[in-house]
Amino acid sequence: MVDPRESIINERLKNIRRIIAVSSGKGGVGKSLVASTLALALVEKGCSVGLFDLDFTSPSTHIILGIEGLQPKEDKGLVPPVVHGLKYMSIIYFSGERPAPLRGADVSNALIELLSITRWEKLDYLVLDMPPGISDVTLDLIRLIRNIEFLIITTPSQLAFETVRKLTSLLKELKIPIIGVIENMKMDKSKAIREETRKLGLAYLSAVAYDTKIEETIGNVSKLADTTLANEIKKITADMQ
Amino acid sequence: MVDPRESIINERLKNIRRIIAVSSGKGGVGKSLVASTLALALVEKGCSVGLFDLDFTSPSTHIILGIEGLQPKEDKGLVPPVVHGLKYMSIIYFSGERPAPLRGADVSNALIELLSITRWEKLDYLVLDMPPGISDVTLDLIRLIRNIEFLIITTPSQLAFETVRKLTSLLKELKIPIIGVIENMKMDKSKAIREETRKLGLAYLSAVAYDTKIEETIGNVSKLADTTLANEIKKITADMQ
Repeated sequence: MVDPRESIINERLKNIRRIIAVSSGKGGVGKSLVASTLALALVEKGCSVGLFDLDFTSPSTHIILGIEGLQPKEDKGLVPPVVHGLKYMSIIYFSGERPAPLRGADVSNALIELLSITRWEKLDYLVLDMPPGISDVTLDLIRLIRNIEFLIITTPSQLAFETVRKLTSLLKELKIPIIGVIENMKMDKSKAIREETRKLGLAYLSAVAYDTKIEETIGNVSKLADTTLANEIKKITADMQ
Repeated sequence: MVDPRESIINERLKNIRRIIAVSSGKGGVGKSLVASTLALALVEKGCSVGLFDLDFTSPSTHIILGIEGLQPKEDKGLVPPVVHGLKYMSIIYFSGERPAPLRGADVSNALIELLSITRWEKLDYLVLDMPPGISDVTLDLIRLIRNIEFLIITTPSQLAFETVRKLTSLLKELKIPIIGVIENMKMDKSKAIREETRKLGLAYLSAVAYDTKIEETIGNVSKLADTTLANEIKKITADMQ
């Protein structure tokens, strides 16, 4: 039986022009930093933007953006608060700082609930900070959201890129569009990931140098806007339609 | 109804002296490298050791250990192959290089199946490479394995340590022993993580310096044994009973 909430989801999302799932094969590659920076860069470009943290196992965009004590308002659904110019939603509103040891089925349920009650209204972009790898959330979103596109983050590490291969293979099989790959935390001039990315038939969007100072920007969006990462992301958003 | 396979699991594991779950709050902190290095260091110390890769979303110990083309033997269960002196099991034997987009319930099922059929026999240590964060596998293992202990890996990053807090809070609530915390990829002399770890009432086991050369040891265990990480892990295993 189809969950009756599922039919409302595409209705809720119908006025969003592009939905971009920022994803990675494994954790620790800077996915949440890219998702946050991407959302901020699109705001700076003058677009209307939402950011939805769906990394249920380790949500961190609220820490990156320095968000505390916010709550969505209830009004015929949930109205996401606006912070740093973007509409922001996260599981953290409900779990707080407690651990959220949700089972797969409960994660699916929470995801469907949040998607069906959140009132994003009209947006140019909705940026999703995805859980790493191929999780229940990944599979659910692909099933539930008609026009989802993926942006994949990797590091130069062989272990990270092997997991990108798997994610790409699944997305291609399901005919889900992939915007391209960003190579993050680059420490040398190796072209290995660039070449491997092209062999997979994907666009290599950017090489972002390893930045030891990025830790100091956590929680401070104006400092974050001044990083190498943010500058590289702005180059990408400049070309985005 | 209790799955009948569950009763056999502790029977299968009863001759294993210690079961150590190498875990992290988030991915990309070097958990699989620590799990592999820990297992190898215990072998070097003369112990009988098993390594079980349970990171179903991005298994990578087989890449770290340079394992290819191995399969367990069937003989009244599954007999794990011995490689580099340790008994090695991984979901990769069954999923190969294909993506394994398992749902939460299927992950639980695969986990119970593998635990109930694998013949580890007598071991001093079974090292588990856990999925990052609080996943279905984490919750299942805590429920299924009587004498499980956790070893937690973090980086100096605030985002990583926030997730350690959550994992620790869950483990303490469930009265699961925590051996301690290893701070990996350390780039300066900051004592912040050491202090935060002690505030959580946990042992701070080691600070491992960031090693740009570790990527070159992937797939080569003799090179891996020669790294800063391996030397730090050997100091920890020297004291292990």
